[in-house]
Amino acid sequence: MNAPAGLQMDNPLLEDLGIRLASVGPGRSTFELDVAPRHLNRQGSLQGGVTATLLDAACGYAGLHDGTNGVLGHAVTVMLTISYISKVDSGRLSAIGSVTKSGRNLYFASAELVAESGELVATAQGTFKRSRSHQES
Amino acid sequence: MNAPAGLQMDNPLLEDLGIRLASVGPGRSTFELDVAPRHLNRQGSLQGGVTATLLDAACGYAGLHDGTNGVLGHAVTVMLTISYISKVDSGRLSAIGSVTKSGRNLYFASAELVAESGELVATAQGTFKRSRSHQES
Amino acid sequence: MNAPAGLQMDNPLLEDLGIRLASVGPGRSTFELDVAPRHLNRQGSLQGGVTATLLDAACGYAGLHDGTNGVLGHAVTVMLTISYISKVDSGRLSAIGSVTKSGRNLYFASAELVAESGELVATAQGTFKRSRSHQES
Amino acid sequence: MNAPAGLQMDNPLLEDLGIRLASVGPGRSTFELDVAPRHLNRQGSLQGGVTATLLDAACGYAGLHDGTNGVLGHAVTVMLTISYISKVDSGRLSAIGSVTKSGRNLYFASAELVAESGELVATAQGTFKRSRSHQES
Repeated sequence: MNAPAGLQMDNPLLEDLGIRLASVGPGRSTFELDVAPRHLNRQGSLQGGVTATLLDAACGYAGLHDGTNGVLGHAVTVMLTISYISKVDSGRLSAIGSVTKSGRNLYFASAELVAESGELVATAQGTFKRSRSHQES
Repeated sequence: MNAPAGLQMDNPLLEDLGIRLASVGPGRSTFELDVAPRHLNRQGSLQGGVTATLLDAACGYAGLHDGTNGVLGHAVTVMLTISYISKVDSGRLSAIGSVTKSGRNLYFASAELVAESGELVATAQGTFKRSRSHQES
Repeated sequence: MNAPAGLQMDNPLLEDLGIRLASVGPGRSTFELDVAPRHLNRQGSLQGGVTATLLDAACGYAGLHDGTNGVLGHAVTVMLTISYISKVDSGRLSAIGSVTKSGRNLYFASAELVAESGELVATAQGTFKRSRSHQES
Repeated sequence: MNAPAGLQMDNPLLEDLGIRLASVGPGRSTFELDVAPRHLNRQGSLQGGVTATLLDAACGYAGLHDGTNGVLGHAVTVMLTISYISKVDSGRLSAIGSVTKSGRNLYFASAELVAESGELVATAQGTFKRSRSHQES
């Protein structure tokens, strides 16, 4: 768990959904969510948008650590694909992302969403573009 | 606007995010969102997870209308790809989905997310599986 | 049909497969293939790799025309998603690509593969990166 | 190498391109290609369609082995996403596919395309539908 004081997500949407940055390091990141009723769809299963949000975050943040002082850079998602493999309706979910290839402007990353039971819920792969112009927070 | 009384989304996550079903018919659906600060990311732009949620809903619901009495069926997303084309940080967004091909068990759909200015924010294409076993609501 | 003398594909793989550049212009391109037995799979239908090749080419070349003197630039595919909608086993196929958004380094494009009957065979969306370093031909 | 006599690809397109089934077993498959000039694009790198063909085959065939007598079943690609990570222009390529989740009608698979040097060339994830109606060969 290397999300120490001072290394915050600072991401309104993730915070609003109750998604936590559990760890982030060079080329990897993990997010967690305790599934609550508000995260479900009409069938009472995890809504696909929550799955997408977790996997997008895990892929994206995996490329943000500069490998030195732990300051997170900025990037935007260019393209993301999600495979919805198993249903889940409760418990703690972990989205584990890793960088496949890191370039100067673009990076490739993939992520898995895993249930507390160890069951694979979904997988994703995406492309991200480093961004230098952003709101300084 | 054909989301009359009685035809509700009944979708906790979409309701939690403030996403509204603006219309749904055979092979098409439209969702709307008025972007609020809680929908943004670290850079102050629409968070990619909200984009994915809107496009997933627009694609998915486009295949749910039975073409007769307006009762919506059930389906789960199998696979979804999103291209993040332009940034947006405020205003009303419309996610417009349409079915590309409807089969007995699977259907293909695509969707566009459009800003109030008419600018294209994101596109998606996905595969969905009809589901007969579900929580009756 | 604006693939005049001098505007050649110069693409060994496409030529090897019998894929022809039927037209190319600013933000659009069309490729054609007359399906032959060697393009089929074990089930006697168009092999998925041929579908991918046609759609990749249609998306990619759609962003190569500079809008002025017709010289085609260079680009590489970053990420591509294909939905396989209908089977086809013969006849002439047209892959019609268009640019969704063109940026300085990246562009987004989508394409449809259509059978002679007008039936939609497959769709794709992808991201492409302009490339300045290349073999001069 | 478990592609013994009697277990042939029987796939005209793959044979035409010189793609070989190196091994196939329950939940996994490997295809190989020795890159030749005809597999290249305008820039002299492996054409994206060949990459797609190799990864589609590796993902698809990974789900075809019945786990008993080695007879390969049949399936069609539903949706496939490819990330093009590194260029390659020669040598032997291996496309290694594995099933992520196998259902009755659908299965999920992913694959990596690796160069002789061990460098990762491309990754893919896809959804496949088992097919019972097919040309008996």
